[in-house]
Amino acid sequence: MTTDTGSELQRDHQGRLRHLLTLEGLSRDELEQLLDLAQFYVRTPGDMPPRDQSLAGRTVANLFFEPSTRTRVSFELAATRLGADVVNLDLQSSSRVKGETVLDTIYTLQSMLVDVFVMRDAEPGLPAYVARHVPPHVSVLNAGEAHVSHPTQGLLDALTIRQRKGDFGSLCVAIVGDIRHSRVARSSGRALLTLGVGELRLVSPESLAADPGELEGAKRFTSLPEGIRGADVVMALRIQRERMPNADSIDGDAFNREWGITSENLGRAKPGAIVLHPGPMNRGVEITSDVADGPQSAIRLQVQNGVAVRMAVLATIVRNVQARNVEAGRRAG
Amino acid sequence: MTTDTGSELQRDHQGRLRHLLTLEGLSRDELEQLLDLAQFYVRTPGDMPPRDQSLAGRTVANLFFEPSTRTRVSFELAATRLGADVVNLDLQSSSRVKGETVLDTIYTLQSMLVDVFVMRDAEPGLPAYVARHVPPHVSVLNAGEAHVSHPTQGLLDALTIRQRKGDFGSLCVAIVGDIRHSRVARSSGRALLTLGVGELRLVSPESLAADPGELEGAKRFTSLPEGIRGADVVMALRIQRERMPNADSIDGDAFNREWGITSENLGRAKPGAIVLHPGPMNRGVEITSDVADGPQSAIRLQVQNGVAVRMAVLATIVRNVQARNVEAGRRAG
Amino acid sequence: MTTDTGSELQRDHQGRLRHLLTLEGLSRDELEQLLDLAQFYVRTPGDMPPRDQSLAGRTVANLFFEPSTRTRVSFELAATRLGADVVNLDLQSSSRVKGETVLDTIYTLQSMLVDVFVMRDAEPGLPAYVARHVPPHVSVLNAGEAHVSHPTQGLLDALTIRQRKGDFGSLCVAIVGDIRHSRVARSSGRALLTLGVGELRLVSPESLAADPGELEGAKRFTSLPEGIRGADVVMALRIQRERMPNADSIDGDAFNREWGITSENLGRAKPGAIVLHPGPMNRGVEITSDVADGPQSAIRLQVQNGVAVRMAVLATIVRNVQARNVEAGRRAG
Repeated sequence: MTTDTGSELQRDHQGRLRHLLTLEGLSRDELEQLLDLAQFYVRTPGDMPPRDQSLAGRTVANLFFEPSTRTRVSFELAATRLGADVVNLDLQSSSRVKGETVLDTIYTLQSMLVDVFVMRDAEPGLPAYVARHVPPHVSVLNAGEAHVSHPTQGLLDALTIRQRKGDFGSLCVAIVGDIRHSRVARSSGRALLTLGVGELRLVSPESLAADPGELEGAKRFTSLPEGIRGADVVMALRIQRERMPNADSIDGDAFNREWGITSENLGRAKPGAIVLHPGPMNRGVEITSDVADGPQSAIRLQVQNGVAVRMAVLATIVRNVQARNVEAGRRAG
Repeated sequence: MTTDTGSELQRDHQGRLRHLLTLEGLSRDELEQLLDLAQFYVRTPGDMPPRDQSLAGRTVANLFFEPSTRTRVSFELAATRLGADVVNLDLQSSSRVKGETVLDTIYTLQSMLVDVFVMRDAEPGLPAYVARHVPPHVSVLNAGEAHVSHPTQGLLDALTIRQRKGDFGSLCVAIVGDIRHSRVARSSGRALLTLGVGELRLVSPESLAADPGELEGAKRFTSLPEGIRGADVVMALRIQRERMPNADSIDGDAFNREWGITSENLGRAKPGAIVLHPGPMNRGVEITSDVADGPQSAIRLQVQNGVAVRMAVLATIVRNVQARNVEAGRRAG
Repeated sequence: MTTDTGSELQRDHQGRLRHLLTLEGLSRDELEQLLDLAQFYVRTPGDMPPRDQSLAGRTVANLFFEPSTRTRVSFELAATRLGADVVNLDLQSSSRVKGETVLDTIYTLQSMLVDVFVMRDAEPGLPAYVARHVPPHVSVLNAGEAHVSHPTQGLLDALTIRQRKGDFGSLCVAIVGDIRHSRVARSSGRALLTLGVGELRLVSPESLAADPGELEGAKRFTSLPEGIRGADVVMALRIQRERMPNADSIDGDAFNREWGITSENLGRAKPGAIVLHPGPMNRGVEITSDVADGPQSAIRLQVQNGVAVRMAVLATIVRNVQARNVEAGRRAG
């Protein structure tokens, strides 16, 4: 299973991360090191952004086959603040117009000395596919892959929980809503299990549950009141209509009544519980505005941590590739 | 009225400008200081662009809900030449696709440590609405708001007139054409009145006149020959078909015959009068090419001044926010 | 003829290149100097990209009226690595929306102190037209003009051939396929003829041949087996359906059988012959994947050389304009 998701593929021969395709297969130590470096890059709004030259001279290409302003800008700012040059490829006006294959686009950019590809796609498999075809000095970052994986989102959720709630071992985290179609649930759930979360709950209607065997170790609930009871962290998910065959069959109001994170439902969680949402929110559907904008919401903190996490990941993989290059040069020299 | 247009909203508790939403409520001194700083940033084509680090480490986001290449690039170059990082949001491929509200987009970018939002919208009210919701260290620049306001255009028109014609008190300025739908007329008119222009004329057909009470102190004309007679400055306006309920009822040729700035009509102005146009021009409609490209045209100078004015505004509001932050830190410390 | 293609227009009064509109009229010495400077900027994938400050303080605007991600990114990276500021104009959301003429867009950007315009258009004539209208300190680079010209592609092809095959005088180069609609064939052919290529062959079906008189000195073939026999370099061209009146009449499979560069056909060329393609490829039509990805392919090297060539061209024209400015200042001073 780990091979399928690219978990082995993302390491070099010394076992160092050179891509970030998935959080599957990362050790607790590795996750904690990434979170520690991300924490180093965290700033409070109003402060000057963090800035160093970890990526000076490097070129990062954002390839978004599925539109996402927030994630694209988050990666763009992360790379820019580390001193990289960034190019954005608008793939509606791209060479796809002329029928060029994705791999030809990658080879082309790689020949222009692009070092890091940040990729988002509505279909599964592209990041690992590309990672199999690039040379050792090129890295691939998965910025969202169908319903499968969104590793930097998993890391930023973990960082947010660690900042607000401390030690994972004593926490109960409830992921609520459209789990079936959520790459966020899969990556955040994986991060939390690896980091030793006390209890992970997957709370959804039967029709929106994950497949059996996914996120083993989590407890499943098909009732929101039960699933949320006593939780320290409530993670609402976006209803992913664009990934549903019968999207119209979901009535937003009805969903909100039974499955929405409302202040009433949040009252069943532990006092002081925090609420997360990966954004963009369907306000009034999976979450109500009083919760999203209320004192228990950590949603803006998630976004803030997102840039820091992406800086940490970029700095780590570029440093690892650099270390490998030095070794390769030494062997050749 | 000033509250409606955001004029009080745009100051901090010490009365310093922290946003630029409107020119309403700015004093003559304030306008002159902005023009003086803009003049410092003016260069002749062929010279190297001005460059300093007033915005080093800052992040500027261009949010254009109404497309405008020229204004977006003008702000982008202004910010870049002051050392800022700039992100452009293509709001057709933005999170609006997923139904995210504008305010959620703002909060998201703000959490990514964006310092300045440059906003353009075809609807009125967005800049002030956003300004009401951002924290004290974040600034909003209005880059064009429906028919209501376009403050940097007002400043660049004033700067152009000052460069070419000197003291405002002795000048007669005629704003001609589709005044009803023009944010430029409103902002430039306001700037000129505050700067003590000798005579301001609003020259338009009855159907395209401003509402009663707007730009008090200006004289209204419904005849072009009368309105233009003896003017030192003739400002042609773009016909804003996109803001008219019955755009098709305007015949370009007929409009040109009666209301176009032609060399014949320009002959009625003072000898040596200059001609302005905010661009983009409908050549052959509100202005003919012989005038637009002729010796009395100051249209390219306006564009050149546009970058300088935007640098001055950016540098001023960021400096003011910085001053406030230092004071806030001192009070807290 | 040279005037039509802009060959005289692209020099200043001292004969220095200030635009690059066409390779027509460039001397062998001039081409070799551009190739030598490009070679200086070549790096192997995995190395840090070249970087200097030849364009520090300059502003480059990419104006692509015909979409092309690969060429736009190639110019963007070339300019960025030379220290320029780059603005990209998305001309679908541009002022064309409001009916502004191209020349007004140019004048506007020029007033914003843009130094270099990089232009691509599906219609012929725009680069020369713009070059006629800009002042002496502004340069135009043709990044692809209809079927007419693509000068940086011609230079990168020549550089690639020189790197792999050395002295042009002893080489036989076969350009194969849709020559009629190919700006690449015209520019690469011109470069090779000027550089003294031993033999240049234009190999195509009669219906896709160049007009009589084009690329004088080249030999024409209407049979692929004959045209490719003994060639040192085989340059496949993209089928340019978008420029054909009856594009549907071309059957990709049938074209491939008779005119495609397959490993079988390539066997008729000289052993060790290299294969070029300007990209993006129609795999299975004008070239098969085994050739495109095989040991004789130099296609990725072409892309790599593309950035280097564009850096060389940008550095050269900006240096020439600077030299002219200094002289003009001396005369004025």
